[in-house]
Amino acid sequence: MRASDYVNSDRLWANLMELAEIGAIDGGGVNRQALTREEFDARELCIQWALKSNFRISQDKAGNIFFTLEGRDKSKAPIMTGSHLDSQPTGGKFDGAYGVVAGLEALSAISESGICVDRGIEVVAWMNEEGSRFAPGMMGSEAFVGVRSIEQIEAVKDKNDISVAQELQKLHDRFSEINFVPLEREVFCFIETHIEQGPILENCSTPIGAVTGIQGVRRMRVRISGEEAHAGTTPYSLRKDAMAEASKTISSLYEVFSSDEEMRFTVGMFNPSPNVPSVVASEVLFSIDLRHPETQILSSAEERVADILRNTLKTCKGEVWTIASADTISFNQDVIKVIEVTADNLGLDCRRIFSGAGHDARQMSYYCPSGMIFVPSKDGISHNINEFTSKDDLVAGAKVLCDTLINLVNMSDFETK
Amino acid sequence: MRASDYVNSDRLWANLMELAEIGAIDGGGVNRQALTREEFDARELCIQWALKSNFRISQDKAGNIFFTLEGRDKSKAPIMTGSHLDSQPTGGKFDGAYGVVAGLEALSAISESGICVDRGIEVVAWMNEEGSRFAPGMMGSEAFVGVRSIEQIEAVKDKNDISVAQELQKLHDRFSEINFVPLEREVFCFIETHIEQGPILENCSTPIGAVTGIQGVRRMRVRISGEEAHAGTTPYSLRKDAMAEASKTISSLYEVFSSDEEMRFTVGMFNPSPNVPSVVASEVLFSIDLRHPETQILSSAEERVADILRNTLKTCKGEVWTIASADTISFNQDVIKVIEVTADNLGLDCRRIFSGAGHDARQMSYYCPSGMIFVPSKDGISHNINEFTSKDDLVAGAKVLCDTLINLVNMSDFETK
Repeated sequence: MRASDYVNSDRLWANLMELAEIGAIDGGGVNRQALTREEFDARELCIQWALKSNFRISQDKAGNIFFTLEGRDKSKAPIMTGSHLDSQPTGGKFDGAYGVVAGLEALSAISESGICVDRGIEVVAWMNEEGSRFAPGMMGSEAFVGVRSIEQIEAVKDKNDISVAQELQKLHDRFSEINFVPLEREVFCFIETHIEQGPILENCSTPIGAVTGIQGVRRMRVRISGEEAHAGTTPYSLRKDAMAEASKTISSLYEVFSSDEEMRFTVGMFNPSPNVPSVVASEVLFSIDLRHPETQILSSAEERVADILRNTLKTCKGEVWTIASADTISFNQDVIKVIEVTADNLGLDCRRIFSGAGHDARQMSYYCPSGMIFVPSKDGISHNINEFTSKDDLVAGAKVLCDTLINLVNMSDFETK
Repeated sequence: MRASDYVNSDRLWANLMELAEIGAIDGGGVNRQALTREEFDARELCIQWALKSNFRISQDKAGNIFFTLEGRDKSKAPIMTGSHLDSQPTGGKFDGAYGVVAGLEALSAISESGICVDRGIEVVAWMNEEGSRFAPGMMGSEAFVGVRSIEQIEAVKDKNDISVAQELQKLHDRFSEINFVPLEREVFCFIETHIEQGPILENCSTPIGAVTGIQGVRRMRVRISGEEAHAGTTPYSLRKDAMAEASKTISSLYEVFSSDEEMRFTVGMFNPSPNVPSVVASEVLFSIDLRHPETQILSSAEERVADILRNTLKTCKGEVWTIASADTISFNQDVIKVIEVTADNLGLDCRRIFSGAGHDARQMSYYCPSGMIFVPSKDGISHNINEFTSKDDLVAGAKVLCDTLINLVNMSDFETK
């Protein structure tokens, strides 16, 4: 018997659907943004599942929560798996949630198989992966590995001027009975299961992706500053219309950056001031999300945006700055190989795949040997209420995760670090 | 002695400055949007001034408030003057407020002069002229003259889903001691004093404008509908990016409409969904405010916008609709002449001027002989914290208003209607 034989496909599906009811929105989607009541409720549900299976529950100051199947040797650093429970404001049922639920299912399967593990296996739900409410995201994993301090994270505010610190206080008040564990504690390796969020696995009918790396990203903000004026009286010659010039700038940016097929360029956020119909806008603040497999191209992106601003703006002033920057990374070769071998032993097709989207596994890859398992996304759709992965594919991913965890537990060390 | 000799320039200025403290924002501006606590407080201050002068105070169901100096013959319809107390979210001290304060100053001057008037003179503060919180504006005057029903007005909601009905209830609860008077009661004539909000009077050093009419306006909404997608994974060929296509559309609209020097084209409001950095926008809703002296050009505007949408949109769908429409109007010739003669008698330069901005006097012009007095705006700036008119110009306008009211009271009827 393999541990994965104990993966309960109906329980996995039922748990995912139960989780999707928390923050459910019309059309089958989910609005469960970081550190909201809905996300707290999702944690509560996972806690109830973990209590049923007698997993140890712990949390840290950064709002991460951990569910542990204890190992024989408590001196050994645990293996970790998991993802996040927060969603985009109009997200789907699977992004993030699948990684947590699959982790808990793998833990239950291992526990029910009676296999004794030498080191602990932990499932984590990282705080604020999405970054839609509190930007930028990946807060929990960045605080865990120490690339952002808890103070930096706590100071971030949402658009209603509510800080992460305020919401973390509420979180810790609600779950005050859960023990705290330190940030930056030792982890043997990390593996995240996730939907692909792209069309490749579906197009080649392959249920499992062994993820080789994550493409780099630059997250920028652009401010166009003009001057407020009366829409009915002010002639064009006297205007400094931030809306007119921001539109023109964004048009130019899309034109320039979309000529590179490998580039992913997106303006997703656009906030004009004062944003009323009869006033010429005095300011527009917009976001740029720019991703590319080649770090060199990312490195020159801010300068290219600044050039386009200089060429496009006539009466307004423009400034651009980078709020988050991550170069393209590669996952641990040993972990990738273990995933491939495990999938093969289960008779599941597996291909190597590169991730266009960012994941907490990126932060963990700086910290310990890490990897990811992808399952297909229908039509490549994600960050959308229509996000979908079939039950069969979800179960296949959970089985590969389960046996991969067992295979990694049995490793004494990694050849490549 | 003329009534205008009793205009107290220091009181006029002090009252305006006291009013500007209510909803004051950094930089000298005012945020006193319609039916907010701040606007209620502004009404309270006017009520206190009116009580000191023994003016009769009344209100109507549409949230308009009236301050009346009684006339000898109560069977005669009153003359009305006034403007509005609400402001844009980052507006100035004078837009609207000046018309109410100048009206109250004229009323006080007439009262203090001892001149007995044959018919009542009322100062009105119309509800929600600006339309920035509840769109479209001009609600109070439109309800008063009957072009919009009270039910239509009450159903309008702000962006926080609060309805006009809810806020009117609060208003009437707060000022429950004030008597109600009916909508659509008879008015002999209406005259509104206002800052120009344009550069003409200042440029020709003329303190008084006798306004000949108001340019027409079309207020439209455009919805661009695309599809939400993950910013990091979705290739351009699979995207329906509402942000990209809305930007391109707005750029084209500005290009087409700004070629006509007499046109005032503005996109002031732009609301994308879900408006987060790492999601391709599924929808953008934006406003168009389009004004032109020629009604014919306004009439074809919606069709021209629809044409541009058809030509610009590649993957998204677009729709345009008109939410408010007003053709160019002319004020009553007799009223214009009375203003000119009155200014001349006071030794004040006066020129005829056309209004680019909309005013409640537009609605009143459909209902009774109406006109407007303009005073200069520094640099033509309005809907802006830097809005400014000198004390001398404000006093000149109030004096012309005061004597114009007396001259109009003494008319038995109008030659032109």
